[in-house]
Amino acid sequence: MSDKIIAIDAMGGDNAPVEIVKGAVKASKTVKYGLALVGRQDIINSELAKYSYEKDKITVVNADEVIENCETPTEAIKHKKNSSMVVGLNMVKEGRAVAFVSAGNTGALLTGATIIVGRIKGVKRPALGTMLPSEKNRVLMMDSGANVDAKAEYLVQYAQMGSVYFENVLGKENPTVGLINIGTEREKGNAMVKEAYGLLEEAKGINFAGNVEARDITLGNVDIVVCDAFVGNVILKVMEGLGKTVLRLLKKELMSGLRTKIGALFAKPAFVNIKKNFFEYDDIGGAPFLGLKGLVVKAHGSSDEGAVAGAIKQCEKFIDGDIVNKIAERL
Amino acid sequence: MSDKIIAIDAMGGDNAPVEIVKGAVKASKTVKYGLALVGRQDIINSELAKYSYEKDKITVVNADEVIENCETPTEAIKHKKNSSMVVGLNMVKEGRAVAFVSAGNTGALLTGATIIVGRIKGVKRPALGTMLPSEKNRVLMMDSGANVDAKAEYLVQYAQMGSVYFENVLGKENPTVGLINIGTEREKGNAMVKEAYGLLEEAKGINFAGNVEARDITLGNVDIVVCDAFVGNVILKVMEGLGKTVLRLLKKELMSGLRTKIGALFAKPAFVNIKKNFFEYDDIGGAPFLGLKGLVVKAHGSSDEGAVAGAIKQCEKFIDGDIVNKIAERL
Repeated sequence: MSDKIIAIDAMGGDNAPVEIVKGAVKASKTVKYGLALVGRQDIINSELAKYSYEKDKITVVNADEVIENCETPTEAIKHKKNSSMVVGLNMVKEGRAVAFVSAGNTGALLTGATIIVGRIKGVKRPALGTMLPSEKNRVLMMDSGANVDAKAEYLVQYAQMGSVYFENVLGKENPTVGLINIGTEREKGNAMVKEAYGLLEEAKGINFAGNVEARDITLGNVDIVVCDAFVGNVILKVMEGLGKTVLRLLKKELMSGLRTKIGALFAKPAFVNIKKNFFEYDDIGGAPFLGLKGLVVKAHGSSDEGAVAGAIKQCEKFIDGDIVNKIAERL
Repeated sequence: MSDKIIAIDAMGGDNAPVEIVKGAVKASKTVKYGLALVGRQDIINSELAKYSYEKDKITVVNADEVIENCETPTEAIKHKKNSSMVVGLNMVKEGRAVAFVSAGNTGALLTGATIIVGRIKGVKRPALGTMLPSEKNRVLMMDSGANVDAKAEYLVQYAQMGSVYFENVLGKENPTVGLINIGTEREKGNAMVKEAYGLLEEAKGINFAGNVEARDITLGNVDIVVCDAFVGNVILKVMEGLGKTVLRLLKKELMSGLRTKIGALFAKPAFVNIKKNFFEYDDIGGAPFLGLKGLVVKAHGSSDEGAVAGAIKQCEKFIDGDIVNKIAERL
C-alpha cells in the first residue's frame, strides 16, 4: 500500500457519516492511496462494518467533536481542537496526510485550512476552484467561495493558480482564462473588475482571453473563469437553483396528461443523459482550495456516496499532478 | 384617442426597425394610449405601410441619427442630439410623451435617461427593475443593470422603489423584499451587503424578509430581490445562458435516436409550455428604469414583435399605476 494517505472528514456534510463512509469505501476500490476516515471512531467503525473492502486501505482516526454548519468559522476552529475538521487539517499540516477532504461547514474549512495548513509564500488569498458544466469541456471557476471582498490582484493569482491546475491535473497546456464581466468590451465592469482586466493583460504565465459574460460560461469557450467569491457563489447557486426549478416544472408538465406521459417514457434516456452529463458530475466532485501549503478539498454539503468518492478520486489527480508544489513554483 | 403618448425608439435593438414597428402595431390594437415611433421617418413609414392599424393611434417623430450598440454611452448622448434615443428622452422630459421605450444601447439609455429626464429628488441612483421567472409569481430584481459600483444605501432605495412598483403596478400590498446573498444567515456577505442588511432592517416602507440565496430566487418565495447591478447582470445572464445551453443539449439528446425522437414528439406540449411560461415572457417584456422624473423602459436588445408589444403594454400599467409620482411620494 502507498504510504500516502488522504484524510476524509467522516462527520462533515448533510449526509455524514453514512454517505461519507460509503463514498470512502467506494473510492478505496480504485484510488491507489490509503484513506483515513476522521471522526467518532465507534460510529465510523460500525458504518464500515456494513461493507467489504481491503482493510489496510482504510484506517480510522478518532476525533470526538463535530463542527456544525451553523457555527461561526473562526470560533469553531479555535474552540473545537478535537473536531474531525481540525484533526484532519492538522494531519495535512504535519505531513501525516497528503490531502484532506470535507463536505462540512465551508467557512470553517476555509478558515481552518488557512490558519492550520497555511498559505504558500507569495499567495495573497487561497481560492476555491469549482468545475462548472459546459457544452464542451468543464470550466474551472476561481474563486467560487473563499474571498467575497476580493481585490484585483487576487484575481490575477486565481488565474495563475487555475492555469497550474489545468496544466498539471487536466494536462492542457496554455489554458485560456476569462474575466467574468457584464460585457465583453474591455471598458465594462465595476471598479475592481476594470482594474483586474489591466493586471490580467500584463500578468505572466497566463493566456488571458478577455472578458466573458456570465451567459457564455456554459458555452465552454474558455478553460478558466475568474471572479470574486460573491459573484462566483451567485453563479454556482443560480445554476443549481435554475436547474432544479426547470426539472420540477418539466416533471409537472410531463405528468399533466396522457400524451406527455407517453412522451416522457420514450424520451427518458435523453433526460437521464443530460442529468448525468451536465447537472451531476461525480467524476469531479471536489473543489480544491488552491494556494495552501497542502491539499484541502471541499465536497458539496449535500454530497452522497458518488460525490464523496469523486472528491477522493480528484485528490489522487491533484497529488499526482503535484499541484501544491507547482503553484509554489509559479507564484 | 388618449392625449397621452408612449414614445418608442424605432431604431434601437438587434431587430430594429422591422420588429419594433411590428410590435408597436401589435400593441396599438390593445393599448389605450397613443404611440409615437421615433426614428428615420421614411424607413418607419415604409415599414408601417405593410400593416393595417388605426392610423390615429400611431404617429411618427423624425430623428435622423441612430446610437449604435458599440458606442460609448456618454459620448453618444452628448454628440447625437438628433438620435432616436435622445429625441425620445426629450419628449418625456418636455411632457410630449408619458413614457419612452427602447431596445437600444443599454448604457446610453441609462445615461441619457439620467441626464435628460433626470432623477426624482432624493433618489440617489435610479435602478433597472427586471422581472425574473419563478415557480410561483414573477420576482422583481433591482438593480439588473444600472449601477455596478453600488453602495448599501442605494439598495435600500431599490427596495423602496421596487415596493412601490409591486403595490401600484401589480396590486400586491406589502410585498416582501430579499437581499441577494451567499447565505441566509445575517452575518454572511461582502462588506457592502452586510451594511445593506442592517439598513434594510431599519428602513421604512418595506417588508424586509432577510437574505435570499441565488439558488432560491426561482422558488419565488419573495416578491422583490435587491442587489448591485454587477450581481444582477450576472444572475440574468446565467439564467439566459443556462436556459439556452440546456435547450440545445436537450434537442441534441432527443434527436439522437428513434426512441427519444418519438418521445420528443409526444412530450412537445410540455416543452412548449415551459418555454412559453418560464423562459419567454412577452407579457412583461420591459424593464422600467425606476427613480426618474419620467417613465423610461428598457426592452431586451434582441426583442422581437412580441417582446416590443409586451414592453409597450407594460408602460400602460406603469402609467395607470402612476409609479413615477408614487415613488416621488415614498422617497
